[in-house]
Amino acid sequence: MASSPLTLTRHQAEIQTALRQAVMKALNTDVVSGTADLQPYYGQIQYHLGWVDANFTLTANHPGKLLRPTLLLLAYEAAGAWGLANAGSDYLLRALPAAASIELTHNFTLIHDDIEDGDAERRHRPTLWKLWGIPQAINTGDGLFALARLALWGVLDEGVEGTIAARLGAALDRACLELSEGQYLDISFEELQDIAVAHYVDMITRKTAALMGCAAEMGAMLGTRDEKTIERLRSFGYAIGVAFQVRDDLLGVWATTVESGKTPAGDVYRRKKSLPVLHALEHADGSDHLFLRQVYSQETPITSEQVEEVLAIFARTRTKAYCCSFLAEQCRLAHAALASVPRVNNPVAARALDDMETLVHFVEEASKG
Amino acid sequence: MASSPLTLTRHQAEIQTALRQAVMKALNTDVVSGTADLQPYYGQIQYHLGWVDANFTLTANHPGKLLRPTLLLLAYEAAGAWGLANAGSDYLLRALPAAASIELTHNFTLIHDDIEDGDAERRHRPTLWKLWGIPQAINTGDGLFALARLALWGVLDEGVEGTIAARLGAALDRACLELSEGQYLDISFEELQDIAVAHYVDMITRKTAALMGCAAEMGAMLGTRDEKTIERLRSFGYAIGVAFQVRDDLLGVWATTVESGKTPAGDVYRRKKSLPVLHALEHADGSDHLFLRQVYSQETPITSEQVEEVLAIFARTRTKAYCCSFLAEQCRLAHAALASVPRVNNPVAARALDDMETLVHFVEEASKG
Repeated sequence: MASSPLTLTRHQAEIQTALRQAVMKALNTDVVSGTADLQPYYGQIQYHLGWVDANFTLTANHPGKLLRPTLLLLAYEAAGAWGLANAGSDYLLRALPAAASIELTHNFTLIHDDIEDGDAERRHRPTLWKLWGIPQAINTGDGLFALARLALWGVLDEGVEGTIAARLGAALDRACLELSEGQYLDISFEELQDIAVAHYVDMITRKTAALMGCAAEMGAMLGTRDEKTIERLRSFGYAIGVAFQVRDDLLGVWATTVESGKTPAGDVYRRKKSLPVLHALEHADGSDHLFLRQVYSQETPITSEQVEEVLAIFARTRTKAYCCSFLAEQCRLAHAALASVPRVNNPVAARALDDMETLVHFVEEASKG
Repeated sequence: MASSPLTLTRHQAEIQTALRQAVMKALNTDVVSGTADLQPYYGQIQYHLGWVDANFTLTANHPGKLLRPTLLLLAYEAAGAWGLANAGSDYLLRALPAAASIELTHNFTLIHDDIEDGDAERRHRPTLWKLWGIPQAINTGDGLFALARLALWGVLDEGVEGTIAARLGAALDRACLELSEGQYLDISFEELQDIAVAHYVDMITRKTAALMGCAAEMGAMLGTRDEKTIERLRSFGYAIGVAFQVRDDLLGVWATTVESGKTPAGDVYRRKKSLPVLHALEHADGSDHLFLRQVYSQETPITSEQVEEVLAIFARTRTKAYCCSFLAEQCRLAHAALASVPRVNNPVAARALDDMETLVHFVEEASKG
C-alpha cells in the first residue's frame, strides 16, 4: 500500500504556485503600506506553510498532501470545468484561487489545533506557538484565516461571476463553522463512557469531512451550474472525508506495514478516543467495560500488558470487523456518489472521475486488512 | 461630556434583532442536524454577546456600543441607501446582515484578544477563556469568526447583487487581515524605546481603524455604486477610528470627569504604551528619557510619586498639547471626508451625515480638554 496515491500529485505544482501567489500578494500589499515591520508576521505564516525555517530563510519545501485543494480541482474537472476544458490547460486558473483558499483554511485550523491540543511538533518541526508563544500563534492563525478568504476572491479576477463567488464564500464559511463545532465536540469529549459512537461520527463529520465536502462542492460550483452535480460531488467529499478519518483510526490500531507510517497499536498507547475503543466500549461485557474505562482514565501511562488486554477486548467485541465494515460502507457511499454524477462528455472530466475512484480504492484498501 | 452621543442609539434595536437572527439561524440549523449536543457551544457565543449568563440562562442584555454596525448603517444612508429611502423604513433590511456581520467580527476579535492579553474580565464578567478554558475559547472565537461571515451572506436574501456581496466579503476579509497585522504589532511591542510614534500610529490604524473604515466602506457599497462616495466614506471611517483610539489614549491620562469612565492617569498606573508616553519619550531630555524607560520596564509596580514624575515629564514635553492636536487633525480629516461626500437629495442621507458630524464633534471634545 503506497502512502499516497498517484492521483494526488497531478495538480501539486499549480496549487503550490497559487498558494505562494496568495500569500505574496498580501505580503507585498501590506508590508510596504505602513512604517512598521510586518516581515516577521508573514514569516510565521511562511514557516507554518513549510517555506522558510524559524529564522525566515528559505528551506526545502514540505508541501503536505494538498488533499483538499486537489479534491477541489478534481471535482471542478469532473463537473465539466464549465465547458472550458477545450480552452487549453488554462482552464485550471478559474479554480486555483479557491484551491489555494481551501488549503490555507486547512492550515489556519492546524495552527489553532496545535495550541488547543498542546502539540509541540508538527511534521518534525516545532509548532508556531512553541516558537513565538500562544498569543502570537492565536493571532497569526486568525490572520491566515482572513488571508485564506481573501485568496478566494482571486476567482473574480479569473472571470468567475459575482453570484458564484458569493456562493463559494458562503460554502466555505458554512464549512468553517461546522469545523469549529466539530472541534468543540472533540475538545469536550472527556470521559470515554460519555462518547457514543454516533456522537463520535457526528464529531468527525464536522471536524474532518465538512472541509472535504466543501472542497468538492466549491470545485463543482466552479465547473457547473447543475445543482445535482454539485450536491453529488459534495456528498462524495463528505463520504471520502469520513472514510479518511476512519482509515486513520483503523491504521492507528492495526497498522502492520512500515509504509502506512503508523506504529502498531499506537492509538492504544496514546489512548486516543477513536472509533475502535468507542465501539469496543459499547459492546464489551461488564468486566471488559470496566477495564477499558479504568485504563483510559488512569493517571499513569498504559503498560504494554494493558495494551495487549485492550487489543484482546477489541478482538472479543469484533471491533476490527466493525471498523472495516464502517469504512467499506463510507467507501460504498463515495463510489455511489461518483457513479451518480451526471457525465459530461470530455476527457478531462472522465480522467478526474477515474482519479477520484482511485482515491476511494486507496482508502478502501485499509478495510481489507 | 456624555459617554455616548445620541447618534449611536438610532438603529440599536434593528441591529440587536439582526444579531440574534444571525446566531439563531446557525444554531437552529446545526444543533438539530447531528446527534451530539452543540447547545453549550452556542451558549458560549451567546454568553460572550451578553445574552445569557454562564449557565446559559437568559440575562439582562448588555449590548455594548454597537459603534461599527451603526457606522455601517449611517454610511449606507449617507451614500443614498441606493435610492431606496422612499421605499419606507424597510430600506434598512438591505444593510442589516452586513451590520450584524461587522459586529460579530468585532466580537470574535475580543474573544481572542482576551486570551492574548490574559484579561480575566470583560464588562464586569469573566471572559470566555476564564470560564471554559483556552482551547475552547480559541475555538469558539474561530466559530464566531466563521459565523460573522456567514451572517454577511444574508444580504443575498435581501436582493443585493452577487457582485456587490462578493465585494463586501473581500472588504471584510481585507480588514480582518489588517486587524491581525495590527494585533501582531501590538503584541510584539515590548521595550518602550523600540516603539516610534509612527509605528504606534501604524499599529492603531490597522488594529482599530481598519474595521471602522471597513464598516463605513461596506455601508457605502450597499448604498451606492459611486466609487468616490465609497472611498470618501471609507476614509471617514479610518479617520474616526484613529480619532477614537487617540481620544481613549488622551482620556486614559488626563480624564477629569466621572462621566468619561476613566481614572485620572489610569494608563500611567497601568503603564500602557499609548500615544502620550511614546511622544514624551521621543521628546524628553536625557534624564527624563532614562526615567521613563526605567519606570516602564521595572518589575515592581509604579509608585504614585513615579506617576507624578511621569506626568511632569508629559508637561515638560508638551505631550498633552501634542495629543490634542493629533486628535484635532484626525477630526479635521473626518470632517473633510464627510464634506466631500457627494450629496444625495433625500432627508435620510442628510440626517445620516448630520449624525456622523455629531459623532466627530463628540470625539473632538476630548481635544479641547
